[in-house]
Amino acid sequence: MQIGLFHSVQWPEGSDQADRYEQALTQACYADELGFDSVWLTEHHFSRHGIVSDSLTVLAYLAARTSHVRLGTAVSVLPLHHPLRLAEAAATVDQLSRGRLDLGIGRGYQPGEFRGFGVDIAEKNDRFAEALDILKQVWATDGPVSYSGTYWSFEDAAPQPRPRQRPHPPLWVATDSPDGLARCAAEDWGVLLPQGTSLTVTAGQMKRYAEALAGAGQGPGRARAYLARAAYVAPSDAQAWAEAEGPYKDFLGYADTLRRATGPDAAPGGRSPFDLDADLRDSALFGSPETVIDRLRAIKELGIDRVMLFLHLGGLPHEKIMSSLDLFAREVLPTAREL
Amino acid sequence: MQIGLFHSVQWPEGSDQADRYEQALTQACYADELGFDSVWLTEHHFSRHGIVSDSLTVLAYLAARTSHVRLGTAVSVLPLHHPLRLAEAAATVDQLSRGRLDLGIGRGYQPGEFRGFGVDIAEKNDRFAEALDILKQVWATDGPVSYSGTYWSFEDAAPQPRPRQRPHPPLWVATDSPDGLARCAAEDWGVLLPQGTSLTVTAGQMKRYAEALAGAGQGPGRARAYLARAAYVAPSDAQAWAEAEGPYKDFLGYADTLRRATGPDAAPGGRSPFDLDADLRDSALFGSPETVIDRLRAIKELGIDRVMLFLHLGGLPHEKIMSSLDLFAREVLPTAREL
Repeated sequence: MQIGLFHSVQWPEGSDQADRYEQALTQACYADELGFDSVWLTEHHFSRHGIVSDSLTVLAYLAARTSHVRLGTAVSVLPLHHPLRLAEAAATVDQLSRGRLDLGIGRGYQPGEFRGFGVDIAEKNDRFAEALDILKQVWATDGPVSYSGTYWSFEDAAPQPRPRQRPHPPLWVATDSPDGLARCAAEDWGVLLPQGTSLTVTAGQMKRYAEALAGAGQGPGRARAYLARAAYVAPSDAQAWAEAEGPYKDFLGYADTLRRATGPDAAPGGRSPFDLDADLRDSALFGSPETVIDRLRAIKELGIDRVMLFLHLGGLPHEKIMSSLDLFAREVLPTAREL
Repeated sequence: MQIGLFHSVQWPEGSDQADRYEQALTQACYADELGFDSVWLTEHHFSRHGIVSDSLTVLAYLAARTSHVRLGTAVSVLPLHHPLRLAEAAATVDQLSRGRLDLGIGRGYQPGEFRGFGVDIAEKNDRFAEALDILKQVWATDGPVSYSGTYWSFEDAAPQPRPRQRPHPPLWVATDSPDGLARCAAEDWGVLLPQGTSLTVTAGQMKRYAEALAGAGQGPGRARAYLARAAYVAPSDAQAWAEAEGPYKDFLGYADTLRRATGPDAAPGGRSPFDLDADLRDSALFGSPETVIDRLRAIKELGIDRVMLFLHLGGLPHEKIMSSLDLFAREVLPTAREL
C-alpha cells in the first residue's frame, strides 16, 4: 500500500494562521522524512475550514523542503480557476519538484466559495467540463491553443513552462458517479475517494469503479484509487478516540455547515454537536497500530492500495499529530507496505 | 544602496526549460547566500521571453530555499489576474516567507499576453484600477468583502490566509506618469522604474516623482524607487561588453517584437538586429567593478538607492552569470552599500 498525508490547514477559533501554517508544513516535511509516499493539499476559500487557498503555491514551497514525496492537490476546484492559470501553476510546480506533482481535480461543493468568487454554483459541472477540456487541449500540444467556450475564450495561448511529466502530471478526479468513473477508466485517470464515508459506501464506489473499468475493457487490477481517511494512531484504541474524536466532530460539523451554507454566517464556535454515527466511527482510522492495520487490511480487500491520512483535525495539538505520524511510521507503515 | 536580482527566466531557442529554471533558481539562491537584498521575478506568458508565468509560486519555492532576501514580483500583471486569487497567492507567499514579500504590480504591455487570456488590452488601465481597488478593500478588513465591478463581482469573500505583513505586503507600482507617481506618493507605495531607459530618462522620472512627493506634502527623501538595470560585471569593460552585448541585444530585440506583436508569430530566431544606441549602452551596468561602481554612483545621485540587476540575459551562460554575481558581491556590493 501507498500511504500519503492529506492536509487542509484548518484554522480553529483562537489559533494563529502563521502557527497553523508552520505546524502543517512541519508535519508534511516530517512525513517526507519518515518515508510516507505523498502529501495532498485541499483548496478552500474564505473560511476557517481550510486556509490553503492556493494549494499549488504551498506545494511549490514543499517541493523545496521535501525530497521524495509526491505532491498532490486534492482537489483543485476547477470551476473556480482560470484553466490557463491552473495549467501554468501546475506545470511550474511540476518543474520545481522535478516531476513530483499529482493534479487532483474536482467540482467543489461549498456555496460560500462560489459566491465569494461570483460564480453560480449551478454551473459547476459545466465549468468543470469546459476547464478540463481546455487543460486537455493545452497539454496535447506545445503550440498555441485558441478556444471559444461558454466560460473561457482566448486566442493563441501556449502556457509556459511545460510540465516536466509528459504529456502532463497524473490526473486524479474526485468522483464516484458511474459517468465520472467511466471517464477515469477510459482516460486512465486516477480516482479520489472521500473521507467521512463508511467502508460500505466505499465498497459500493469500488464496485462501480470495477464496472467502469470493465466497460473500458480493463480488469479491476487497473484500478487506481486514493482513499482519504481521518487517522490518528495512539498506543491504545481508547487513547486514540479520547484524543481525536472531539476534533474530528468539530471538523465534520463545520464541513457540514459550509456544505449547507447560503449566507456569510457559517462560522460556528465551540464544540460541534455533530453526531458520529456507527458508519462515521467505522470510517476513521483511529486506534492502536494493530487496529489501524486491521482497518487498512479491510480497505485493501476492497481493491484500494492507496490511502491518504487526514491527521490535522481541528484543534488536535501539533505535538500529538507529530507523535501519531511517528508511531504510524514505526508500527503501521512497514506492514501497510506489504498489504 | 540596496541591490537586488531581477529575473525573467528567458527560454532561448534550443535551450531546455528544466535547465533554465534550475539555473535561475541556483542564481537566486546564490544571491541570497552572497548577501544581496532581494530577488524579483517578472510575470510573462506564452513566449520564450520569460517562462515564469506564476511568479508567486516560484517565490514560494524560493521562500524555502533562501533565508534573508526579500522576494518580489516585478510585476504581477493586474489586468490578467483575478484579484481575489492574487490576494490569496500573495498572502500565502507572505506567510511562507515569514513576511518577505514585496508585491510589484503593473498594467502589462504585450498584446499576445492579453489575447492569450482573452482580455482586451484596451481595458488594461480600467482593469488595473479595479483590481487595485479590490485588493485595497480586501486588505482593509479581516471580514468578508462584496464587490460589484465592471470586471469582477462577488459576495462575502474573505481571502485566507491573511498576509503576514499588516495590513499588506509593501506595494510597488510600475509607473512613471504624473498621475501614477502622485498616487504612489499619496499612498506611500514604492515605484518600480524599468531597465532599457537611459539615465537621462530616469532623471526625468525621478524629477516627476519628486514633484509628486511635493504635491503630497513630502520631501524627496521619502522617495522609494527600485531601478532595474541590465548588469554584467567582468574583470574588464572590454570583456564585459564582449560577453554580454549579444545576449542583451537579443533580449531587447525580442522584447520589442512582443511589444509590437499582433499575431502568434512573434518568435524570432537567431541574433537580433536590435540596435544598442548610446542611450541603451549608457543604461546597462556592463563593465569592470570600477565602472559599475561609477554608474551606481550616478544612479544614487538621482536619488535612487535601490537597484535590481538583470543578469539572466538571453543566452548568457549560467557559469558566466554565477561568476558575475560572485565578482559583483566581492568587488561592488561593499562599496554600493556605502553609497
